[in-house]
Amino acid sequence: MRKRILRKSRLCVLVLVLGLAPSPAVAADDIIWRQVDPENLVFLELFEGEVAIELNPLFAPETVQQFRKLVREGFYDGLSFYRVIDGFVAQGGDGSDLGELSMVPLIDAEFELDLTDEIEFTRVQKNDLFAPETGFVNGFAAARDVSEKKAWLTHCPGVLAMARNDDPDSSRTDFYFVIGQAPRYLDRNMNIFGRVIHGMDVVQKIQRGPTDNNGIIQDETASSRIRHMKLASDIPKNERLSAFVVDTSSKSFEKTLKNRRNRKQKFFHHKPPEVLDVCQVPMAGRLTR
Amino acid sequence: MRKRILRKSRLCVLVLVLGLAPSPAVAADDIIWRQVDPENLVFLELFEGEVAIELNPLFAPETVQQFRKLVREGFYDGLSFYRVIDGFVAQGGDGSDLGELSMVPLIDAEFELDLTDEIEFTRVQKNDLFAPETGFVNGFAAARDVSEKKAWLTHCPGVLAMARNDDPDSSRTDFYFVIGQAPRYLDRNMNIFGRVIHGMDVVQKIQRGPTDNNGIIQDETASSRIRHMKLASDIPKNERLSAFVVDTSSKSFEKTLKNRRNRKQKFFHHKPPEVLDVCQVPMAGRLTR
Repeated sequence: MRKRILRKSRLCVLVLVLGLAPSPAVAADDIIWRQVDPENLVFLELFEGEVAIELNPLFAPETVQQFRKLVREGFYDGLSFYRVIDGFVAQGGDGSDLGELSMVPLIDAEFELDLTDEIEFTRVQKNDLFAPETGFVNGFAAARDVSEKKAWLTHCPGVLAMARNDDPDSSRTDFYFVIGQAPRYLDRNMNIFGRVIHGMDVVQKIQRGPTDNNGIIQDETASSRIRHMKLASDIPKNERLSAFVVDTSSKSFEKTLKNRRNRKQKFFHHKPPEVLDVCQVPMAGRLTR
Repeated sequence: MRKRILRKSRLCVLVLVLGLAPSPAVAADDIIWRQVDPENLVFLELFEGEVAIELNPLFAPETVQQFRKLVREGFYDGLSFYRVIDGFVAQGGDGSDLGELSMVPLIDAEFELDLTDEIEFTRVQKNDLFAPETGFVNGFAAARDVSEKKAWLTHCPGVLAMARNDDPDSSRTDFYFVIGQAPRYLDRNMNIFGRVIHGMDVVQKIQRGPTDNNGIIQDETASSRIRHMKLASDIPKNERLSAFVVDTSSKSFEKTLKNRRNRKQKFFHHKPPEVLDVCQVPMAGRLTR
């Protein structure tokens, strides 16, 4: 290898990045933030780092209730991500060897909601490939079908959902994170009950399994494991981090969407079609003490 | 943390995964493979692992020619990924401190091709959100507009493309991998000239930069670096790995697409719409000695 001097500091970065910026069309100061309810905030501690998750009791009340209970009991602590397919999902939470599973009830399907006024829907796209309309509901990527009067959460990267077998009502403890291109064909088929709001880079570090074995990691000692999961509301207030996510019902967020849909920068030699993929809108949150 | 016994071997895996399998609708034996031309095969050695890339001289002849030359000169060896945004791109290859850049010419825009019979297009989807038609051309995710008589490669995860500034003809050495949800708004705006065919899990291990600094990693010693890049054709035949990718013009691949588009498994409580996202078709290749 040719010898190079590594720079300790990049004070002057000459980079060809202008048009590649993920377009923070609204200045950071203009973002309207919503604080995440500590009862819906889960800190997932992996050996790879820390992840923050927001739960969604509006779309998946029963799943969230059971997940909270399992987190509080420490059910997931020490369990591994036993099935991890790069570009698809990282699945963990199998406690079948703990002898405790028989006490954990199955969860009914919570795949979609009846459309009501309770669901404040900020539209992203009409005639999306997979749904008549996509948008955001309280920070979560979603879709709706007004003719069917249904709304559901969409399988975007960072989504947290329950695994199941062929029976729609068979979710129990095993969950998965979406870690690749949105598998939208799973929409309306799974209990999506949360999303990563911080530390998606950590989730991406989870050890992958072999694709020729459906991602199953045979040797559990080679898998990524959960050190600890905790609900924010169980941490004393003065020790607890607060989480904030973009308020997707705010005017400034609508402006962000508009600017991403209609890209006018000089960079775009070919003007992109004025459409938006709901899963390609950066939606990370922030943590503060 | 609760004490658990880690299993050294998972002989009996009780997993809720059936419907979550990425549907290898065609048995592995039935896949028709195409061998990658060693002149288009690049081995990228990172400290995180090995990556194999297939170059695409059909869509980006000038870019591929210059990239091959730079690889052969060892230009990239030792350089870092200096701008890495989780869910977006991993960008590297800035050699501006090497004092060699002035000798590297700029590359003209190679954003799209005129549609000719040379371009064998296996259709995936009509009326995709971002293009009138998507499909595969010789293993690469692509799109076309018959009315405009143009075809182009699409920004799917794993794509390799050249960074540039506002000038469409300003690509030089800096490149990026797409590592998140397909930023399709960049289609027809960048010189896409290759794709990862093996080791995307390694690419996902590339160290991320801070989002509040546009992904720029100030301290270069904290960034992921390229150990070595090599063209397969420069390795003696008996020492070289061969790479194979799915032959996307084969009947068996058409069957794969059909089965992914029309999911009939019992698992699907709600039958997904009969559509396909061209970036959500698993397209990994395999390496053999």
